[in-house]
Amino acid sequence: MTDARTTVDAYHRAWTGGDVEAALDLLDEDARCTAPGTAAMTKEQWRSYLAGFAPRLTAAPGVARMTDEDRVALWYLPQTATTTTALAAELFTVRDGRITEIRLVFDRLSYGPPA
Amino acid sequence: MTDARTTVDAYHRAWTGGDVEAALDLLDEDARCTAPGTAAMTKEQWRSYLAGFAPRLTAAPGVARMTDEDRVALWYLPQTATTTTALAAELFTVRDGRITEIRLVFDRLSYGPPA
Repeated sequence: MTDARTTVDAYHRAWTGGDVEAALDLLDEDARCTAPGTAAMTKEQWRSYLAGFAPRLTAAPGVARMTDEDRVALWYLPQTATTTTALAAELFTVRDGRITEIRLVFDRLSYGPPA
Repeated sequence: MTDARTTVDAYHRAWTGGDVEAALDLLDEDARCTAPGTAAMTKEQWRSYLAGFAPRLTAAPGVARMTDEDRVALWYLPQTATTTTALAAELFTVRDGRITEIRLVFDRLSYGPPA
């Protein structure tokens, strides 16, 4: 339990701090990642996806975290130039200290250019 | 713990089954509900919001559920004519058998008209 949470906390701290590579080191080679509007992504695809978004992130205050054995859920507010209030939810599965699945949910419209 | 989960399960079963009023009965009068692209909603505003979406729902298979004392999280796939694969995440706070807060996250673009 603690192990899964520790892994996810380290992953989250790394990428939201701009270190996508350190975050990726915690993903299993066969990890499967999903996000709105895309097909399931491999680890390599997730690397590109995260690397594309991370530079826009200015902060990511946490709202909630829940742990249930090998699953961890995070809710946080990814802040960019266009939004500070759009909640994101991320559900992780961790096995043997490595993240094997990420399911990210957020509202793409909230991150579009200002109206 | 069980109490919060029982309340949320009943709420979820009710509205996804089309009975928005039965779901609303489980909300505290002062409940605060948030969803993508809107300001925080009161119970009355949430009633309208749910009633607007519920008729479009054809199914809502569950993906995960987590409970942590007075908080419960659900992940599910709300299915409509336009999507069957867009994940939704919903975070509830329950006090004394009544839901006091709902934070709903989903991708509005995934529920738009077919391209």
